[in-house]
Amino acid sequence: MGVYGNGVASGSAGGGDERRLAWVYLSRVVEGPCAALSSLIESVGVVEAARAVRECVLPEALRGPTELRRGIDRAEQDLAHIDRLGGRVVTPDDDEWPAWRMLGLRQLDPSQDEAAAVPLVLWVRGPRSLRECTEKAVAVVGARCSTGYGNHVTGEIAGELAVRGWTVVSGAAFGIDGMAHRAALAVGGTTVAVLACGPDRPYPVQHDRLLAEIADTGAVVTEYPPGTSARKHYFLARNRLIAALADGVVVVEAGARSGARNTVKWSRRLGRPALAVPGPVTSAASVGCHRMIREGEAFLVTSADEVLDEAGPLRLSLPGVVPPNPEDNLSGDEARIYAALPTVGSRLPRSIADGSGLPLPATRATLCALELAGLVACDENGWYRTAQPKGGGA
Amino acid sequence: MGVYGNGVASGSAGGGDERRLAWVYLSRVVEGPCAALSSLIESVGVVEAARAVRECVLPEALRGPTELRRGIDRAEQDLAHIDRLGGRVVTPDDDEWPAWRMLGLRQLDPSQDEAAAVPLVLWVRGPRSLRECTEKAVAVVGARCSTGYGNHVTGEIAGELAVRGWTVVSGAAFGIDGMAHRAALAVGGTTVAVLACGPDRPYPVQHDRLLAEIADTGAVVTEYPPGTSARKHYFLARNRLIAALADGVVVVEAGARSGARNTVKWSRRLGRPALAVPGPVTSAASVGCHRMIREGEAFLVTSADEVLDEAGPLRLSLPGVVPPNPEDNLSGDEARIYAALPTVGSRLPRSIADGSGLPLPATRATLCALELAGLVACDENGWYRTAQPKGGGA
Repeated sequence: MGVYGNGVASGSAGGGDERRLAWVYLSRVVEGPCAALSSLIESVGVVEAARAVRECVLPEALRGPTELRRGIDRAEQDLAHIDRLGGRVVTPDDDEWPAWRMLGLRQLDPSQDEAAAVPLVLWVRGPRSLRECTEKAVAVVGARCSTGYGNHVTGEIAGELAVRGWTVVSGAAFGIDGMAHRAALAVGGTTVAVLACGPDRPYPVQHDRLLAEIADTGAVVTEYPPGTSARKHYFLARNRLIAALADGVVVVEAGARSGARNTVKWSRRLGRPALAVPGPVTSAASVGCHRMIREGEAFLVTSADEVLDEAGPLRLSLPGVVPPNPEDNLSGDEARIYAALPTVGSRLPRSIADGSGLPLPATRATLCALELAGLVACDENGWYRTAQPKGGGA
Repeated sequence: MGVYGNGVASGSAGGGDERRLAWVYLSRVVEGPCAALSSLIESVGVVEAARAVRECVLPEALRGPTELRRGIDRAEQDLAHIDRLGGRVVTPDDDEWPAWRMLGLRQLDPSQDEAAAVPLVLWVRGPRSLRECTEKAVAVVGARCSTGYGNHVTGEIAGELAVRGWTVVSGAAFGIDGMAHRAALAVGGTTVAVLACGPDRPYPVQHDRLLAEIADTGAVVTEYPPGTSARKHYFLARNRLIAALADGVVVVEAGARSGARNTVKWSRRLGRPALAVPGPVTSAASVGCHRMIREGEAFLVTSADEVLDEAGPLRLSLPGVVPPNPEDNLSGDEARIYAALPTVGSRLPRSIADGSGLPLPATRATLCALELAGLVACDENGWYRTAQPKGGGA
């Protein structure tokens, strides 16, 4: 029922409908991320890519992933369906597409992980622009089997983040996820639930009402088309969207084999801070958090204040043009950060901050500015100097 | 009542009594660490230093510290007193002097901290050689106002360390310290209490019986002569001995302004691992632990296993002779560790381990071997290359 609730293509020029139908068709064909398809779309455009898929005029790598459903074109029905749900589909053509959030996903190496790709479209229920409501966002995730302690701390941290105007992103699961959404809703804050199934499928089903509440004021988001059931590997792909849509990930409780570790991995691959809340060492629900802290995968936080110290606002200076000899033309902080990067290999933000003597938030902001200028990039090992400046602009 | 219980000088040659009386006299004159006095003793010997103090033929720096009590020579009475307590004085002349443990204290810069000095003597109650019972030792310290959680975890960790043959060193205070001693005693392990007052003063007085039990099987140790009352700054000096007598320090609970942070600081200055156990973020008793982990002052541990991963056995290879060009003659691991040290400035063991690709325990062992060879040294910032090799041996 929201302002974006009628499936109207916003911000696209001529050919909007054709392009939209192409995106939606392809979204159903591959069901989830498909780096090879993203790459084809990037080179020939979405309409041409849809035609190639339909006609099976495809590179080898794309035949398998499209084989099963390339004959199914329900794009118009899907659009009608999401419209009836009061939702919409958001494509990279739309103004509300969180393009900046997706930058990191584009830069990952898909040969390491099939899911390392930008989603084709996002199916969204909720009244607000997705781009706006993920502008300042922190993901709060954790164990399904949370304890009273974990629930309490989640309430404190997510509630405080929401009060301060930060969107709380989570996965709508039992335990910590549900608590994070509820804490944000309880203070009238914004919360975004990212699903591993179609936008019409409440998962878990007991969170039907919670998801409806989230969709009333925040957003319920998924890359899976209506009717898609949750599958195990969809959760892993979904976790990358949780990480991508936020400035950082906080894990409140995580058992020894928690899925939260996967979200943390994505967060690190995207160069965003991964944070974990400690708990009693006697609690099985904190084992994963302690392990991530010990192994340097996540940084210990105890409060919303500390979360924002790490994941806090990015201040982009957006340099316009990349100078021929980049190091000579950087501002003071930029030069210090650039100098703190190794000539070979990569380095994590905290270590770069230590090396440069700049505070961590400034370090992160400057890294992002340097990234937009094409001078640096990041992968799961941290930030590194790009060998050849790639040119500026987002 | 132990084998060292009669005040007999062991291991000193001729002039033993005269030297012993000189040590004891000086111990009472300065009451605690005095770097200037240690330095005088090192250059002229203890007997001559005692004469210089008595006659006030002293460098300016030593006049103040000796002024108050240089006229008091109660060495014989003190020796008789400790003998009556069933204890003894241990001096650097004695075989059981934990010389290796004290190496680190000698290398600290006393201009930064008056307490950065080797103790003149140690007053000891307990049946076993102090050197032997601190050979494999971990300090377990923490909040006086501990919680049930902290007491439980202390019991688990200290008990397990003791079962595995590690001596538990602590400060005999209420809360975590007391629990650490009790846990070691409960499993028939060895525990050492380091006091900030004379060996005849149970502090706190409610731990009278606990201290007697510790002295029965382990050791009660202090650098303060009989009759000395605890004073605030004695606790800070005492903390350096807790750190020095152990392979690492574990803090189980610590409030926002805990003394345990001071022990951790000493541990780091001595190049030994500082470890902290997390707890509920809702508990004031864990605030200090979380802060130390966040600020990189301590490393998170959750169990005795993890403590020993960090503080575990040192394997010294004791190279005999320092080659003229040290880097050319190092073994594989030694060369890697040496190469991982910066040419200027210092680096922490974990970072050296990362840099060298060696596991942390091997890194620490190799650093110690290199230290004994005079090639590296450590201060509160970590390990560094000594500019000029100083010659081998301990």
